[in-house]
Amino acid sequence: MHFSERIKALQASPIRRLIPYADSARAMGKKVYHLNIGQPDIKTPGEYFEAIRNFRVETIAYVASQGLPELREAISGYYHSWNIPYSPDEICVTNGGSEALSLAVQVICDPGDEILIPEPFYANYNAFAETALAHVVPIPTRAEEGFHLPPERVIEELITPRTRAILISNPNNPTGTVSTADELNTLAGLAKKYDLFLIADEVYREFTYPQSGLSGGDSEPFTSLGHLDDIRERVIMVDSISKRYSACGARIGCLAIKNADFIAQTLKLCQARLCVSTLEQVGAAALYQKTSAQYLADVNKEYRARRDTLYSALKEIDGVVCSKPRGAFYIMAGLPVDDSEKFIVWMLQNFDINGETMMGAPGSGFYSVPNRGRNEIRLAYVLKQEALVKAAAILKSAIAAYPGRLEAVRA
Amino acid sequence: MHFSERIKALQASPIRRLIPYADSARAMGKKVYHLNIGQPDIKTPGEYFEAIRNFRVETIAYVASQGLPELREAISGYYHSWNIPYSPDEICVTNGGSEALSLAVQVICDPGDEILIPEPFYANYNAFAETALAHVVPIPTRAEEGFHLPPERVIEELITPRTRAILISNPNNPTGTVSTADELNTLAGLAKKYDLFLIADEVYREFTYPQSGLSGGDSEPFTSLGHLDDIRERVIMVDSISKRYSACGARIGCLAIKNADFIAQTLKLCQARLCVSTLEQVGAAALYQKTSAQYLADVNKEYRARRDTLYSALKEIDGVVCSKPRGAFYIMAGLPVDDSEKFIVWMLQNFDINGETMMGAPGSGFYSVPNRGRNEIRLAYVLKQEALVKAAAILKSAIAAYPGRLEAVRA
Repeated sequence: MHFSERIKALQASPIRRLIPYADSARAMGKKVYHLNIGQPDIKTPGEYFEAIRNFRVETIAYVASQGLPELREAISGYYHSWNIPYSPDEICVTNGGSEALSLAVQVICDPGDEILIPEPFYANYNAFAETALAHVVPIPTRAEEGFHLPPERVIEELITPRTRAILISNPNNPTGTVSTADELNTLAGLAKKYDLFLIADEVYREFTYPQSGLSGGDSEPFTSLGHLDDIRERVIMVDSISKRYSACGARIGCLAIKNADFIAQTLKLCQARLCVSTLEQVGAAALYQKTSAQYLADVNKEYRARRDTLYSALKEIDGVVCSKPRGAFYIMAGLPVDDSEKFIVWMLQNFDINGETMMGAPGSGFYSVPNRGRNEIRLAYVLKQEALVKAAAILKSAIAAYPGRLEAVRA
Repeated sequence: MHFSERIKALQASPIRRLIPYADSARAMGKKVYHLNIGQPDIKTPGEYFEAIRNFRVETIAYVASQGLPELREAISGYYHSWNIPYSPDEICVTNGGSEALSLAVQVICDPGDEILIPEPFYANYNAFAETALAHVVPIPTRAEEGFHLPPERVIEELITPRTRAILISNPNNPTGTVSTADELNTLAGLAKKYDLFLIADEVYREFTYPQSGLSGGDSEPFTSLGHLDDIRERVIMVDSISKRYSACGARIGCLAIKNADFIAQTLKLCQARLCVSTLEQVGAAALYQKTSAQYLADVNKEYRARRDTLYSALKEIDGVVCSKPRGAFYIMAGLPVDDSEKFIVWMLQNFDINGETMMGAPGSGFYSVPNRGRNEIRLAYVLKQEALVKAAAILKSAIAAYPGRLEAVRA
């Protein structure tokens, strides 16, 4: 039986492949605090359910491949509220941000082409690139520098004739880093100089927090790649309602670009898969049209409090190294263990406090360079503060009890 | 600005690219009978809407990448009712049959690999193959032979070391042909002899009709590739609720195979796109669990009557050549015109009877061999009989008035 080389080479998702261990732990009666996956416990706004319940048709028919006009109108209105001027014609509705990323890669990459991505990065970027036989070229970043970009010349040296794009997750999954306007301008300059696209994964756009103090202070306002005027036709915006409205299971995202040729090419792929779920588009349109600014403000406040709580708890654990993230809802922490994946499996199989254990995502899954991130763990602060405190306490005790504990984080 | 060679080479959907002409016709106040797309007017069973309205959660969360357990259970039960023994573990829920086809190609094909498909075929097969840089190799079939497969040696001669699979749409879109058990056994023999997969697109499984007489007669019972015992691990079943339950806009399909390695490989791709819409899976589970046998029987009866009506009407048009299809809801007809795509555009722009016109899908879109099918049109009998009669009358008058009319169908 012959499988393709491409599928054999593809790694299983490092986030999802540990799920069976969590299932076993639960089957043994343990409660597992899931900090391993970006699945928030925040309520989806009621407008989503209401719009779907009120949508009355007799036949649930195909809709336009590019997306329901009212949803594209609503998304356009949302972007304008951020001073990002996408018109409805410049937007394709997709099956989550995931499909938008796949489409972007297909439209710009042939086999052997390269996409530069700051490392660590969201593991599925690799899958989307490799499925299209393109390759991710990592731009190294360092925890000590808050995972910000290295100097321009370091990035420039990585650009080859096969480079097609630079992909930026901003705010960043898994590091929580928020790009500065200077960083984005550097990338814009490189994009123009080398005729590259910039793929902007901004699904956490609403999730930025000041570093300290209740009333802001040291944080500059969020800059989107969609704000930069002179490279608009090169910016492929990738977006999703999953985090913004806590609607991960709706699978509604979009790709947007001020480039009619790009949209026309993308539509060929959209037409092949016919359309995106009609009901989910109806629900998503209501979310964009009707969700109050207060909802988004409350969610932001909640995540900020969670970040502060988890960060403070982590700082109390001997040997744990991390910096305070400015956005998204992840902390990438260095642990004093031999291998964080082994450690996570060990916790699920062998450790609990009063029947409770916890789970993070192994850091190595966010690196393409072998052996990097082996002592790191990504923790998603998607649970209530009380649960985060408990999870951090479990982590602290587990590290102390773990046979593979090291004296300090291995560099 | 650099686009990939793969995207530049991809043709826009021949079915969907004429939609702007229909939009213009409607904007001019014309009514258009849409026989161009397989979008039925049949009601979606109420169980779908009811299950979605009754699904109460606060957060619409990610679900399992392979699909909701209750949906996979329900699909498994459905298959067992057809004596096709897929267990829930052997099923992956997909974004429509479209995604199932894409996954299948990715799992088995590297660039340059080949998939044999009887021609004419569903145009998007080409898109799914070409996106993965695999190629469709057409197996020629002839209208005069009811589009059945050519002799085994003709197929065997097309097999090369790069052949990975034979894909069969059964009942067939666009021809309405239903494969015989003998044909399927021939393919099974070739699959074993040459170590190939068989991709079975059986989304029209419920849509077979006897050739004549109200109580059946000359039709053998439907044979599925899933019925053949000794090649189970080679059969990739592709399915969808779109036609079965008239739920095209739900975008729920599946891939099923009795081959644990294949499922494991497929899951790597499923995990990269996280999951399929939660609500749509809830609705689909209700459709599989609760739709009455009577609903499916009534739908079958309705389509059969529509087939008879449209077929009879077409036989009355001078110069139109077609045979009576045994399944699905399409008729592939030869027209006495220079080019059916030009003819369709001409009808939309220049022809109407009392403000009404009609639309079919150009036949050439279903062929990969250049210039084949240029005089053919695919007509979907997805409208009520009264509408089909009107559409056929419009077609008849339009052919008579068309400047590019020929005396007979060009061979």
